[in-house]
Amino acid sequence: MSYLQQLDTYFTENRDKHLQELNTFLRIPSISSLSEHKEDMQTAAKWLANALTNLTIENVSIDQTAGHPVVYGEWLHAPGKPTILFYGHYDVQPVDPLNLWDSAPFEPEIRDNKLFARGSSDDKGQVFMHLKALEALFETTGSLPVNVKFIIEGEEEIGSPNLPAYVEENKEKLAADLILISDTSLYAKGKPAVCYGLRGLTGVQIDVRGAKSDLHSGLYGGGVQNAIHALAEILASFRDEHGTIQVEGFYDNVRPLSEEERQAYRELNFDENELKEEVGVTELFGEEGYSYLEQTWARPTLEVNGVFGGFSGEGIKTVLPAEAGAKITCRLVPDQDPVEIVALLKAHIEKYKSTGVEVSISEFDKGKPFITPFDHPVIQAAGRSYEKVYNVPTAYTRGGGSIPIVAAFGEILNLPVVLMGFGLTSENFHAPNEHFHLENFDNGLRVLGDYMYEIAALTF
Amino acid sequence: MSYLQQLDTYFTENRDKHLQELNTFLRIPSISSLSEHKEDMQTAAKWLANALTNLTIENVSIDQTAGHPVVYGEWLHAPGKPTILFYGHYDVQPVDPLNLWDSAPFEPEIRDNKLFARGSSDDKGQVFMHLKALEALFETTGSLPVNVKFIIEGEEEIGSPNLPAYVEENKEKLAADLILISDTSLYAKGKPAVCYGLRGLTGVQIDVRGAKSDLHSGLYGGGVQNAIHALAEILASFRDEHGTIQVEGFYDNVRPLSEEERQAYRELNFDENELKEEVGVTELFGEEGYSYLEQTWARPTLEVNGVFGGFSGEGIKTVLPAEAGAKITCRLVPDQDPVEIVALLKAHIEKYKSTGVEVSISEFDKGKPFITPFDHPVIQAAGRSYEKVYNVPTAYTRGGGSIPIVAAFGEILNLPVVLMGFGLTSENFHAPNEHFHLENFDNGLRVLGDYMYEIAALTF
Repeated sequence: MSYLQQLDTYFTENRDKHLQELNTFLRIPSISSLSEHKEDMQTAAKWLANALTNLTIENVSIDQTAGHPVVYGEWLHAPGKPTILFYGHYDVQPVDPLNLWDSAPFEPEIRDNKLFARGSSDDKGQVFMHLKALEALFETTGSLPVNVKFIIEGEEEIGSPNLPAYVEENKEKLAADLILISDTSLYAKGKPAVCYGLRGLTGVQIDVRGAKSDLHSGLYGGGVQNAIHALAEILASFRDEHGTIQVEGFYDNVRPLSEEERQAYRELNFDENELKEEVGVTELFGEEGYSYLEQTWARPTLEVNGVFGGFSGEGIKTVLPAEAGAKITCRLVPDQDPVEIVALLKAHIEKYKSTGVEVSISEFDKGKPFITPFDHPVIQAAGRSYEKVYNVPTAYTRGGGSIPIVAAFGEILNLPVVLMGFGLTSENFHAPNEHFHLENFDNGLRVLGDYMYEIAALTF
Repeated sequence: MSYLQQLDTYFTENRDKHLQELNTFLRIPSISSLSEHKEDMQTAAKWLANALTNLTIENVSIDQTAGHPVVYGEWLHAPGKPTILFYGHYDVQPVDPLNLWDSAPFEPEIRDNKLFARGSSDDKGQVFMHLKALEALFETTGSLPVNVKFIIEGEEEIGSPNLPAYVEENKEKLAADLILISDTSLYAKGKPAVCYGLRGLTGVQIDVRGAKSDLHSGLYGGGVQNAIHALAEILASFRDEHGTIQVEGFYDNVRPLSEEERQAYRELNFDENELKEEVGVTELFGEEGYSYLEQTWARPTLEVNGVFGGFSGEGIKTVLPAEAGAKITCRLVPDQDPVEIVALLKAHIEKYKSTGVEVSISEFDKGKPFITPFDHPVIQAAGRSYEKVYNVPTAYTRGGGSIPIVAAFGEILNLPVVLMGFGLTSENFHAPNEHFHLENFDNGLRVLGDYMYEIAALTF
């Protein structure tokens, strides 16, 4: 019997027991953003520490931080073999509006082979799978083919404010060969995905001031600059008619897509018509020479997120506005640096500043982009593990969004990060009726088990 | 004794009586915008009709309209002499916030030779001066040197919705040689002004729509057009870096300034530094080759009055906005036509519309620009009358603002319009503590009396 068959038998036999265990974890209302759940955060951390200990994971600790605790554990009895650092989070999103839930968010319920509960998909269900994959190997082989470490935090949903410092302080303890995170989604139902890159983020607010107060457009119009016009000139200068960013130096450090990556994206046969339908536009828009997936996964952006100034009520008010502002964010790709990009934005804004106004710029938080090279063995191994279980080619994807902690992790520990998720984008992660398709719970356990063997076969 | 000396004596002797009469007029709270004052509007109209009748003005009528009544009257016993149509309004602005008034708005009070009351300057005080100028001529000479007609409306402060139709219907009855309006201001304290032009107004609202709802800027950014960017491109395309409007054909019908006009403006020695101080800017801004007065009086404008779209709260929200909008108004100068200008704006917007968005345009009300040629005898005569009383050169000005009824008047009746006002811009017309400098009440009566002789000497 192959190890994959052994795993299959083990998971089939223990499915009910596993789901019952998961339910006890899901019942803990570990909402990190609400102070009234502070004790529940400790309860969830203890539940996890206990679960790790039961697995014979060693040196399990609940490490207090300035916020909610980090749960650590390790098993290092595979000498000469690689070490996987498993990352996940036990905190969940708030649940309001409660009346839109069909069953109580902390009373897990299976309907139509989907497990409904807050955290079922994001991320308690997937953290639990890490534990059960290990359990299966221990139970069927008495050991693990690799060394493992766990770091499970309680502040992911509030931006991981204390994790970078924790990782920095525990750099040696967390040393490993790769970081494995299961907190993302399949490419589509039945189609697994390895996400090997995420865009970073940075942004600024631009505030333009002309006169000291709004002026009568009849009395002063034509002789005093209008803050909105001055702002519009800056905003319009940022991109050309195809959306290509005109900020000098903006693309200098953009890592080009390899031919292999482009081929991998093409093979996904992304349906642009379906997308148009979904978002409700008749035409897409973006940099020439790049497909939609390339544009959103591997190219940086500059978007005005909001603009304001003057009169926006009903009808007409013939005012010459003294103030106007806009919020801008950029999605960044490797190897762009958020700090450098902000400096380029500032220089650009200064260059396009009109006569007769003052412009001030305030900066937003920054997050670096992340990438593990497409052809990195840990990425390709993940693709193979998925394929053995799902029996379809794995999608190699990047995410257009930003998870700053992923980039921070990779950078502080200098490790490749593998995002091997089992959710589906339709699973209402941050909304009422969050659920987890149990077919992916079942398949994912087998994939994770297999991945440990795949990693064990690699040399680092 | 010259007629000017006679007038002087008459006004001096009757000053107290005149002011007492004016106070009875000012005590009527004729606020046109508030329905609870509907009866007061009738009372004010009756007061005026009665005052006209007492002057031996004939065919006095209170003509009801769909709104507040128009008061009409005429005296046509100067055969072969010109006819002046006097226009004014008996309605006033609301008075709130009441607590900011130092004396009750409808209890006239003189402090420091200023008459404080709502309507004292705008426009009851100035309408009353028309009546008293006639009275002085009747009393001192037994007659008038010209024919006169009166049209005094009660809806100026709400945009004169019923006046154009009234004028159209009574075209023959209102036939005259010029229209005289006293509802504007001196150029400065002690420096009278004849306003011979006003800018017109037109405007549009631009609404841009991209996707059917706001999108996640990480997931879609780079592949779907952002409504704010599309809008900013349109807005930035309207003007160049000096504010010169780039809409094709926009300036085609602009009447150039004559050398005489430019000279008249130069002689005003307008203080640009004082203006900068007043509005709080370090640099002015406007079309090259024109002075500030030329820019604001005789050149058209295009101003964004308001802009809105996306997220404008505190901090950051990484949204790709589906909607954005802006309100635009243009001040127009002779011989621009508001309807044509809107058509040009629409063509321009269409030309600058980005891929991936829909743009809709809605139109605002339109008002034509007005001008009585600078060298028209009725304008130059007004300047002379002012100079005889004020003993300084008259300023020949235009107004940057728009009084649509003035242009409509001139156009329907095909008459030159003379704006010969006696207010000061500091007199809080539409604010608490409206007042009227009585030195201009006194001087103005003499100017108006003289002007009738000046007009009598002209041939039309």
